[in-house]
Amino acid sequence: MKSFGLQLTPELIVSQLPGELIKRKDAVLDNVAELSEATENSICFYENDNFLEALKSTNAGLVFVKNEFNESLHPNTNFLKVEMPYIYFMMLIKTWLSLDKGEFVPYISPKASISEKATLDSHVIIKENVVIGANVKIGKHSVIEANCVIMDNVSIGADCHIFPNVTIYDDTIVKNRVILHAGVVLGADGFGYIYHEGIQQKVPQVGKVVIDEDVEIGANTCIDRAALGTTYIGKHTKIDNLVQIGHNVQVGQNTMLCSQVGIAGSTKIGDLVYMAGQVGCADHITIGDNVKVGAKSGIAGNVESNKLMFGIPARESGITKRIMASERYLPELVKFYKEAMKKREENAGI
Amino acid sequence: MKSFGLQLTPELIVSQLPGELIKRKDAVLDNVAELSEATENSICFYENDNFLEALKSTNAGLVFVKNEFNESLHPNTNFLKVEMPYIYFMMLIKTWLSLDKGEFVPYISPKASISEKATLDSHVIIKENVVIGANVKIGKHSVIEANCVIMDNVSIGADCHIFPNVTIYDDTIVKNRVILHAGVVLGADGFGYIYHEGIQQKVPQVGKVVIDEDVEIGANTCIDRAALGTTYIGKHTKIDNLVQIGHNVQVGQNTMLCSQVGIAGSTKIGDLVYMAGQVGCADHITIGDNVKVGAKSGIAGNVESNKLMFGIPARESGITKRIMASERYLPELVKFYKEAMKKREENAGI
Amino acid sequence: MKSFGLQLTPELIVSQLPGELIKRKDAVLDNVAELSEATENSICFYENDNFLEALKSTNAGLVFVKNEFNESLHPNTNFLKVEMPYIYFMMLIKTWLSLDKGEFVPYISPKASISEKATLDSHVIIKENVVIGANVKIGKHSVIEANCVIMDNVSIGADCHIFPNVTIYDDTIVKNRVILHAGVVLGADGFGYIYHEGIQQKVPQVGKVVIDEDVEIGANTCIDRAALGTTYIGKHTKIDNLVQIGHNVQVGQNTMLCSQVGIAGSTKIGDLVYMAGQVGCADHITIGDNVKVGAKSGIAGNVESNKLMFGIPARESGITKRIMASERYLPELVKFYKEAMKKREENAGI
Repeated sequence: MKSFGLQLTPELIVSQLPGELIKRKDAVLDNVAELSEATENSICFYENDNFLEALKSTNAGLVFVKNEFNESLHPNTNFLKVEMPYIYFMMLIKTWLSLDKGEFVPYISPKASISEKATLDSHVIIKENVVIGANVKIGKHSVIEANCVIMDNVSIGADCHIFPNVTIYDDTIVKNRVILHAGVVLGADGFGYIYHEGIQQKVPQVGKVVIDEDVEIGANTCIDRAALGTTYIGKHTKIDNLVQIGHNVQVGQNTMLCSQVGIAGSTKIGDLVYMAGQVGCADHITIGDNVKVGAKSGIAGNVESNKLMFGIPARESGITKRIMASERYLPELVKFYKEAMKKREENAGI
Repeated sequence: MKSFGLQLTPELIVSQLPGELIKRKDAVLDNVAELSEATENSICFYENDNFLEALKSTNAGLVFVKNEFNESLHPNTNFLKVEMPYIYFMMLIKTWLSLDKGEFVPYISPKASISEKATLDSHVIIKENVVIGANVKIGKHSVIEANCVIMDNVSIGADCHIFPNVTIYDDTIVKNRVILHAGVVLGADGFGYIYHEGIQQKVPQVGKVVIDEDVEIGANTCIDRAALGTTYIGKHTKIDNLVQIGHNVQVGQNTMLCSQVGIAGSTKIGDLVYMAGQVGCADHITIGDNVKVGAKSGIAGNVESNKLMFGIPARESGITKRIMASERYLPELVKFYKEAMKKREENAGI
Repeated sequence: MKSFGLQLTPELIVSQLPGELIKRKDAVLDNVAELSEATENSICFYENDNFLEALKSTNAGLVFVKNEFNESLHPNTNFLKVEMPYIYFMMLIKTWLSLDKGEFVPYISPKASISEKATLDSHVIIKENVVIGANVKIGKHSVIEANCVIMDNVSIGADCHIFPNVTIYDDTIVKNRVILHAGVVLGADGFGYIYHEGIQQKVPQVGKVVIDEDVEIGANTCIDRAALGTTYIGKHTKIDNLVQIGHNVQVGQNTMLCSQVGIAGSTKIGDLVYMAGQVGCADHITIGDNVKVGAKSGIAGNVESNKLMFGIPARESGITKRIMASERYLPELVKFYKEAMKKREENAGI
């Protein structure tokens, strides 16, 4: 359950959305909730029959339902019939959150440590113990939560939200409306060594990281600086928790990288790619646009646009699924083969 | 080697434990150690024949051994014969640690930043640069180590230990006797987007995280808040380092999730489940109680209670092991098959 | 592009390196760059034909090329012909970085919290909000970046660089010239529990972590303390981001562990081992020297020195590759087998 300061009524909501209100009682609405935890002040949604029992017994004050919903399933709650209950419910939450947030009140904590050579917009929030290096720029309405460290020459755009304990190394560029969750590390050295004269010698990593507009990056994810040049994350791309992006990787726009994905150095990933959890990509390969990759896959070579890939090694998804369905017979197959070999030997012996 | 302030003697120890002391010399005991690094002041244990040589040459002042141990293997150290040497050795360490710790001395660092609206028990320890938001509650004898950030409306129970650089987002509930290791992130937004009008649109994540009593969570592990409702970790469950728990996941009691495990959104995991390292679980599935999952497995569907699972995709462990044992023959099988096909073609040609 | 304060000329560079200068124009050089982003002040290198078009159109002021390079490919830039362009280019960057860095200027932030019982060399840098516990030692020319927490009894050698938000638990030993990237956690408790009397009981973790000289550890990597004894990382070993090293693991010298590798408890890894991304190692096994392991492999048992390993389970690389190449035929093989079985049954029925 999420509570809001601003109170709503069913009538107010239906006046803003293209839907039909089935009203049974007055309601003051101040939170969103799951059907099972709802109170008379809650707004919920119902789309999936798996939750029918929860719907029948809910205490919710208003439930978003589909146009074809049969309201006799619950005698005394209010329903809002709309085309896409979940989508409208989420849109309501977004609007409610922004109404609740109120005006942006700039704040710079006296406990923040800000270089005299940094340039901050007059409308920013910098919380406690944030450390900001020389030549850092931070744009309007950006929020840096407590205990972040922004090293020298970093540029952060407008309307960014940097959660606690994030580290941004020198020279990183973060554009507008980027969200970085707690513990993210941008710009640490890429993993480059040459074994020379009996020891692993560090290859200097002097490139940078650029995070383009509207990117969101999950907790404790790491994006390494380029050896030379740029590691780049394209607009509207979303990266989950604990993901590794190696040096010089290029990621396109609107791409989704789920948790624990790892992308090795210099690999290029297109637009609208989806990689499920724990996928790994080899280095120096190219993944086209609109590629979907199943969980745990290992991509060893280039992938053309629009492919569905799966498996270790990743093949077209249908091929891997047929192989997986066949694996069950493998022990029998081996037995059959051994018998055939034995017979062949016996026949040869005659 | 771990040293303690309080000194013990073999006689004192045997007076507290159900065992038999084989005494060869007086000893003052002030540390626990491995056999190979022990000094005359060390207590060790010996259970596994692999360490026989280390046992024979140890300098330890006291060694916990099994009842049937032959003390002539070492002529001049002291032995304590007990039923379960390792268990009793660990119990001794626990007791010794707690005796050494002494009284709880409350402390709030002047460098901590604590909201006036927070409610702290009078007996807590809050270290340097900790930031505590509005409406946070912290229970008796809890310790918040340096540089943690506890955002608004978080509740932390009694006897918790939160290690450095942990981030806890708004609304999270942490119950009694929870241990969070360094870098843990609780309550970051779940990974939810809808591709709409040509861009990935963020689905607001307004649920919360609840960590129940006696849970321990390893370093840099991430547990995301629910989209709506609750992401829940049950009592006595233990989670290793670098684990990912997605939004709306429910984990039961006494479950063990080893390092780098990833659980996708809305999945339910039962009690006493054991997942070895790097296991992945699909979203929206149910894993029963007492399920054991081998390392690196990928669980794609529901699993009934009491199953042993293994592989990608995870099957019953015995099946996967038979398939793996058969894989070695696959190249020969293919050769055999191709020959058979060739013959068949030749015969058809006749 | 990485800029430097100190300016160089082609003549100065060729006077320091064993190469031949093809000079077409004067140049003042103050940065290193990729060919495509270079300005007339940039130094680049060219070794790989894939970058031929970038070479032909580069604006670089100086390009390191191979001895046999044909300088007519670009009419008006300067070339330095050397035996190993990339190696010499990297050596130049290293030298340039160290010239640029200038003298070590000791600094202890007034916002650092340093125990009176800590012993710091007079030439260290301790940045803002660093917290240093009792009995900590820090050697000459070591740098502790902002917001790190160094708990009690930790020893850090000389010339170390600890990036922001690192946590080092009690008793850890970090030797000379170690680099720890942001978010690293050293010395958190190992994952040890015994299920006893119906609950998971914590096994006390009272050992420590030792990081030997010249080790580099990537962002958000976790190395757990030993249960008893030591978790050890050998000299010149390099560990990438998001790696998990369990309690009591021993890693040799000059070993490379790529991102998201996980090593379970008590495993021993030799010298010069290379593990690609997302590899997992079982507990209590031994990996010899000079072993190379392909990405995503799962190592379940001991591996002799000098082996190439790959797959889940990891086998010798050639075997796994032959198996993988055969998998494609598996659906056909199953069809063939089912037909053969059907015939056999029909024949038996006659």
